[in-house]
Amino acid sequence: MVNQLKIGMVGTGFMGRAHSNAYRRVNQFFNVAYEPVLKAVAARSKDKTEAFARRWGWERVESDWKKLVDAPDIDVIDICSPNNTHHEIAMAAAQKGKIVLCEKPLAINLTQAREMTQAVEKSGKLNMVWFNYRRVPAISLAKQVIDEGRLGKIFHYRATYLQDWTISPKVPVGGAATWRLEKEVAGAGVSGDLSAHNIDTALWLNGSISRVFGMTEIFIRNRQRLDGTPASVEIDDVCTFLAQFQNGSNGTFEATRYARGRKNKNSFEINGEKGSLYFDLENMHQLQYFNHDDPDHLQGWRTILVTGSEHPYMANWWVPGCVIGYEHTFINALADFLKALEKNERVRPDFRDALETQSVVEAVLESARAEKWIKPEEL
Amino acid sequence: MVNQLKIGMVGTGFMGRAHSNAYRRVNQFFNVAYEPVLKAVAARSKDKTEAFARRWGWERVESDWKKLVDAPDIDVIDICSPNNTHHEIAMAAAQKGKIVLCEKPLAINLTQAREMTQAVEKSGKLNMVWFNYRRVPAISLAKQVIDEGRLGKIFHYRATYLQDWTISPKVPVGGAATWRLEKEVAGAGVSGDLSAHNIDTALWLNGSISRVFGMTEIFIRNRQRLDGTPASVEIDDVCTFLAQFQNGSNGTFEATRYARGRKNKNSFEINGEKGSLYFDLENMHQLQYFNHDDPDHLQGWRTILVTGSEHPYMANWWVPGCVIGYEHTFINALADFLKALEKNERVRPDFRDALETQSVVEAVLESARAEKWIKPEEL
Amino acid sequence: MVNQLKIGMVGTGFMGRAHSNAYRRVNQFFNVAYEPVLKAVAARSKDKTEAFARRWGWERVESDWKKLVDAPDIDVIDICSPNNTHHEIAMAAAQKGKIVLCEKPLAINLTQAREMTQAVEKSGKLNMVWFNYRRVPAISLAKQVIDEGRLGKIFHYRATYLQDWTISPKVPVGGAATWRLEKEVAGAGVSGDLSAHNIDTALWLNGSISRVFGMTEIFIRNRQRLDGTPASVEIDDVCTFLAQFQNGSNGTFEATRYARGRKNKNSFEINGEKGSLYFDLENMHQLQYFNHDDPDHLQGWRTILVTGSEHPYMANWWVPGCVIGYEHTFINALADFLKALEKNERVRPDFRDALETQSVVEAVLESARAEKWIKPEEL
Amino acid sequence: MVNQLKIGMVGTGFMGRAHSNAYRRVNQFFNVAYEPVLKAVAARSKDKTEAFARRWGWERVESDWKKLVDAPDIDVIDICSPNNTHHEIAMAAAQKGKIVLCEKPLAINLTQAREMTQAVEKSGKLNMVWFNYRRVPAISLAKQVIDEGRLGKIFHYRATYLQDWTISPKVPVGGAATWRLEKEVAGAGVSGDLSAHNIDTALWLNGSISRVFGMTEIFIRNRQRLDGTPASVEIDDVCTFLAQFQNGSNGTFEATRYARGRKNKNSFEINGEKGSLYFDLENMHQLQYFNHDDPDHLQGWRTILVTGSEHPYMANWWVPGCVIGYEHTFINALADFLKALEKNERVRPDFRDALETQSVVEAVLESARAEKWIKPEEL
Repeated sequence: MVNQLKIGMVGTGFMGRAHSNAYRRVNQFFNVAYEPVLKAVAARSKDKTEAFARRWGWERVESDWKKLVDAPDIDVIDICSPNNTHHEIAMAAAQKGKIVLCEKPLAINLTQAREMTQAVEKSGKLNMVWFNYRRVPAISLAKQVIDEGRLGKIFHYRATYLQDWTISPKVPVGGAATWRLEKEVAGAGVSGDLSAHNIDTALWLNGSISRVFGMTEIFIRNRQRLDGTPASVEIDDVCTFLAQFQNGSNGTFEATRYARGRKNKNSFEINGEKGSLYFDLENMHQLQYFNHDDPDHLQGWRTILVTGSEHPYMANWWVPGCVIGYEHTFINALADFLKALEKNERVRPDFRDALETQSVVEAVLESARAEKWIKPEEL
Repeated sequence: MVNQLKIGMVGTGFMGRAHSNAYRRVNQFFNVAYEPVLKAVAARSKDKTEAFARRWGWERVESDWKKLVDAPDIDVIDICSPNNTHHEIAMAAAQKGKIVLCEKPLAINLTQAREMTQAVEKSGKLNMVWFNYRRVPAISLAKQVIDEGRLGKIFHYRATYLQDWTISPKVPVGGAATWRLEKEVAGAGVSGDLSAHNIDTALWLNGSISRVFGMTEIFIRNRQRLDGTPASVEIDDVCTFLAQFQNGSNGTFEATRYARGRKNKNSFEINGEKGSLYFDLENMHQLQYFNHDDPDHLQGWRTILVTGSEHPYMANWWVPGCVIGYEHTFINALADFLKALEKNERVRPDFRDALETQSVVEAVLESARAEKWIKPEEL
Repeated sequence: MVNQLKIGMVGTGFMGRAHSNAYRRVNQFFNVAYEPVLKAVAARSKDKTEAFARRWGWERVESDWKKLVDAPDIDVIDICSPNNTHHEIAMAAAQKGKIVLCEKPLAINLTQAREMTQAVEKSGKLNMVWFNYRRVPAISLAKQVIDEGRLGKIFHYRATYLQDWTISPKVPVGGAATWRLEKEVAGAGVSGDLSAHNIDTALWLNGSISRVFGMTEIFIRNRQRLDGTPASVEIDDVCTFLAQFQNGSNGTFEATRYARGRKNKNSFEINGEKGSLYFDLENMHQLQYFNHDDPDHLQGWRTILVTGSEHPYMANWWVPGCVIGYEHTFINALADFLKALEKNERVRPDFRDALETQSVVEAVLESARAEKWIKPEEL
Repeated sequence: MVNQLKIGMVGTGFMGRAHSNAYRRVNQFFNVAYEPVLKAVAARSKDKTEAFARRWGWERVESDWKKLVDAPDIDVIDICSPNNTHHEIAMAAAQKGKIVLCEKPLAINLTQAREMTQAVEKSGKLNMVWFNYRRVPAISLAKQVIDEGRLGKIFHYRATYLQDWTISPKVPVGGAATWRLEKEVAGAGVSGDLSAHNIDTALWLNGSISRVFGMTEIFIRNRQRLDGTPASVEIDDVCTFLAQFQNGSNGTFEATRYARGRKNKNSFEINGEKGSLYFDLENMHQLQYFNHDDPDHLQGWRTILVTGSEHPYMANWWVPGCVIGYEHTFINALADFLKALEKNERVRPDFRDALETQSVVEAVLESARAEKWIKPEEL
C-alpha cells in the first residue's frame, strides 16, 4: 500500500521547479511506500505562484509560508526559498513537528545552522538537506568504490566548481537568478553556493576536514541592480582553499564564476594508494577510475559509462546507454528520503551533515579574512 | 487556452513508458496550446496493463486495441506495440480519422509502410513517427549548423550504432526485451532497430541516398526461447552498408549488437569542405564541430556542451551546464508535435519520412542478399 | 661486438629523412649487434642530394641508384623513392644479393609485388617493408593484448585513415609532396597510401581477409601541375571497403583525404567477445581497452598511456609519462630489423606480408570497378 | 657558414642523455649558424662515462668536471649533474668566461641561485636554464595566444604536476633515479623538481607572483637506501600553494608524486575574460582553447592538434598529424639558444628567469613552514 505524504513547499524558483518535478515523478520510477501529494505551495507573488501551482499541480497556494507550517493537512515542509529565509521557516516547521526538507546551503551562517539542526533533531522527525549531487549515479558509484576498499589509503582530494556566468559586469544584482550576488539574501557567495556542494561531496567521500586555509576574491565589486541603481558586491566571487583531512590526506578546493568556458565543472579527483577516481558534472554520466591492481601493461583510467542496471539508481530508469540528467538527482534523492521514511531510518545528508558543511564554509571564510589556518568548529 | 488532446496508446513496454512520461510532462516544460490527456491504454495482459495505467495515470484500460480506434473520445492513436502490429493498427486508426503517432520502424516491410503512409495521408490528419533522436538537442544543433551553411559541400557521412547486449548466447529469443531477435515480431534485426535511426538522422542531415551496398551477418543462429526450447535467429545481428548520397557524398553505416564495450554508440560524422561535425549518443550532451574558417593556428575540434539557452530545446529545461537525458527526446518531440498541431503544419519526421527510411532499409537488406548495389525504391 | 651494416639509400624525400634519422639514432637507444653506416645515398638532383647527405652524414652521393646496387661496399639497399621505382630497384638489388628494405606500398600493382617478393626470397637475404605503424608502441601493445587471448572471438574490425589535405582544388599534382596524386608515380591513390597502412595493421592484428567490396571516389578530377598546366587526377581520393576476415569477423575500412579536421586519423577498433581495443594515431601514445571481465559496475574503456617501461619499446626511450613521436616508429622498426639480422630470423612485415596487403588493395580496387565482392588473390 | 660550438657537459644521467641527443640532432632539423661539437663529458664513474661517451659520440671523458671548466677548447659548460653541484660548477664556469647552460632547478636555495645569476651576468656570456617545457609546441602556442590578446583580463591560473612513482614505501632513497628523495642532493622535494616547472611556465604565461601560501607534506618519512640501511625523507613529497599574481589573477598549484594513475600530469589552465586555455603534458601534442567570441551556439573547448606547420617549431619536424615527443623539447630549446647566440640576444629562460622561479619556490616552502602568506623575495 502506498501512503500519502502531504507536501507544503516554500519557494517557486528554480529549485521549486526541480522539487515539484521530483514529487510528480518519483512514484512512476520507484516503488516506494509513500506517494507525495502536492498540497500547497507558498511564495510572495500571488499571480506567479498560482501559475506555478497550475503548471505543477499544487492543490492550493499561499502567499505566507506560515500558513503551510500551521496547516494540519501538511506533513512535510520543503524549503526552496532564498538562503536568508531558511532559518525562520525551518525553526517554525520543526516546532510544529513537521518533517523538514531544506535546500542547500542550510543557512547563512553557522549559528543559524546549529539552531536549525538542534530544532529538527529535537522534533524527532526525519529531515534532509538537498545536496542533490550525492545522487548523481556516478558520485554514488564513487562512494561505493571507496566503501569497497578499492582506493586504499587516500593521499589527495581535489575539487573544483567552475562556472563563468558572472564575468560580464552587466550581470545585475538581484532578481530571480541573481540574488546569489546579494549578501543580505545569499549570505555568502560562491562559498555557500558552489563550495558547499564540493564540501558536502568531500565529507561524504573522504571524511571530516581538520583544518582549512582560504583565499577569496571579489573580481567585480560594482554592479547595478535590475533598476539601474548601483549595487556593491560584498560576497565572494571566488573561494579557494587548502584542506587537511582527518584521514591524513591533502585537499584543494576551488570555486568560481569567472572560469571562462566552464559551465558547471563540479569535479573531484581522489587519489589513493591502490586506485583513483575522477568525476566532472559536465559529463555527469561518467566516472573515471584507475585501478593499480590491473596488470601493469594494461593500467589506465577507465571511463565508466554509469548507465547500467548494475549502477546506483539506474535500474529504475531506462536501459544501459541511456543517460539521465540533472533533474533526476532530485528524484533519486526523494526516493531515498521516502525509503528512509518507510524504514524510519536517518537519511543522508541531513541537517547534521549540512551543519558540518556549513562549519567548513565558515572556517574557510574566516581563514581567508584572518590569513591563517582555521579548524572548523566542533559541532 | 489549452485544449485537451485525448490519447489512446497501444503497448505498455519500454516505449509505452517513455511516451507516458512525455505526455505527463510536456506541459510543465513547454507552453503549448494542447494538453495531452491520458485517456486509454491497450495491451494484452489485463493485470499488467492496469498496473501500468495506475502508475502513469491512464484513465482506462483495454485489452483490445480496436476499442481505442473505435472510441469517440480519443483523438490520437499512439502505437508503441511491437513492429509486426504497426500496420494493422495504423490502417484502422487512419480509417477512423484519428491522428496517428507510430514508433519506429514504421513497419516490417516497405509494402506495409507504403500502405500506412497512404492511409494517414488520405485521412488528412497530422501524423508522426517517433524517431526521437532528431530531438537530441545536439543533433538538432547539427541540423542548424548545416542549415546555416557552415559545412559547405559535403564529402563524407559516417554513422555507427554499436551495442553489445546480444553477445552472450544465453540471451533468449522472445519476451519483453528480446522480441527484437524474432523475425515474426521484429521483421528485421538491427537494420530496422538501429540502422533505421542512423538512416533517419542521415536523411535529415545529408539528404536522400542514391544507392546502397549492404553486408549483414548473423553471429549466433541458435538460441533458446524463454521456456528453453530452441529458437533460430533469422534476422540480422549486424547491418553494415556503403551509401552514395544524392549530394555527391559517400557514406558508411554500421549497426551491430556485438561491439563489446559500446552500449549505445549511435554516432555520426559529417565532413564538409568548410567544416565537420561529430556526435555520439553516449555523450549526448555534446556536439563536436571543426571550423576550417578559424585562424590556422587555432583550428581544432570544439566540444560544444549543448546545454545553453541558445541551444535547441534547452531554454525549456534547466540552466546552462545542466544536462538532460534520453527521455527528454520524447518530450521534445511531443512538444514539436503539439506546436505543429496548433499551427496545422506538417511535423517531421512523419510517415512519409519514415517511409523513405524504410525504403533504404529494404534496399540494404536486398543488396546484402543480391550482393550488388541497390537503389532505394522511389516513393 | 657491434658489426657495421653498410646502407645505400635511394630517395631523399620525406621518407629518406625519416630513415636517415633512424640510422643515426638506433644505436643510441637500442643495444643491437649491428651499427648502420650511412654509406651512400642516391637521388636525381645532385645539389639537393649533396645537401641532404651533409645534413645527415651520408658518406657519398650518387645520382644513379644503380651505382648503389653495384657497390661492393654496400650491404643494404633501402628504397625510399616514389612507388613507381620500387620494382626495378628491388629486383636489381635482390639479384645482387643485397638485403632489401622497401618503403610501402611495396609496388604499384600486384604483379610487380609478386615478382619482387619472389626475387628477395630467392636471394635468401633478410627483407623488410617499412609499415612503420606496427612499431607504434600502442599498436604493438594491441598485438600483445590480442596474442594474450584477452579479446576472445572477434566480431568486428573497423579502420579509418582520414586526412584533409587535398580538399582545396589548389593543391597541385606533382612535386615532392604531391606525386601522391599522380597515377604514373603513385600507382594508386589513398588505397595504396593510406588503406595499405590500415590493411597491414588489420592483417597483423586480425588475420587474413576472405573477400572485400570496395567503393572509390575521385572528388576533384581537374587540378593543375606546379607549372599551371592542367592535370587530370585518375587515382582514388577515397577508398572505402567492407571486408570479411577468415576468422569470421566483419570489417569496415575507410581512407580519404577529404575529412575536414582529421589530420592523421589512422584508427582501428576491434571488438571481441571478451574485450575490445581502440587506437587513433592522432593520440598515438594511447591505447583504449575494454575488458568485459572487469566487475560489472566497474567496466569501462581504459585509456592506457603507453609510455611505461612495461610497454613495447618504451624501456628503450625515456621515463613513464614521456611520450615518443612519429619518427620513433622507424627507429623501433630498424631495431627490430637489426635484432632479426643478428638472430637470422624473419622480420615482419617483410615483402611477403606486404604482398598480401597489395593483394587486398588490388582486390578492393577491382571490386570497386566491378561492383561485386572480390576474393584477394592467393599468393 | 656553420660555426662549431664546443660543448663540455657535466653529468651522464637522464638529462645527460636528453642533452646529448639534442646536440646530435639539432642541425639535422634546424638551420642555425652553430653546430654543437660534443667535446667532453665529465662524471665520476670512469667506466660508465666512457660507455656513455661512446654511445653518444663525446670526444673525450673526464672524471673531474673542473677539467672541462679549465679546458681552452670548450665554449659551453652544460650542467646536468644533481642539484647540489650546480652552484660550484656554474660559478667556476662563469669565472672562466664559459657560456653556461644549467638544468633546472637552478640551485638548492635562493642564495646560491642569486650568486650564480650574478656570476653569469658578470661574465657577459649567454646563459640558459633548461626549463624545457616552454618548448613544448603547445605551450609555446599558449604563449602566442596570450600575446595575441585572445584571453583578455586574466582571472585564474591553475597548475598541477602529478606523478605517482613514489607511492610504494619500497622506492629507495639514493641512486640514479632516486636522489630526488635526498635532501643533501636535491635540496628540495617536488617543489624544486615539479613545482619549479609549473612556476616557470606560470611566470612566462601569466607574469610575476605577488604572494604565495604553501602546504607541504611528507607521506612516507622512513625509507631505505639501496643498501638497505634506513633513510629519513626530509623533503617535500607534496607541494601545494595558493598564489596571487601581479596582474590580479588567482592561482592554485599542486605538485605530488602520490597521485595514483597520473604519470606526468603537468597541466595548466588559464581563464581570461575573453578566452581560456588548457594543457596537459600527458597529451602534449594538444592545446585546448575556449573562445568566448565564437557565436554563442557554437562555443566550446577546441582541441588543437599542435602538429601543423603553422604551429611553433613544427615546420622543422615532420608533417601535420605527426607528433613529436618529450625529447624534442630539448632540441627546440637548443635551437633557440643557438639562434640567440647568432643574434647575440638574451635567450629565455635564463639564469635570471630561473632565479625568479627559485624565489617563488623558496617563498612557498617558507610559507608552508611559517603558515602565512609570503611575498617572494625581490631579485
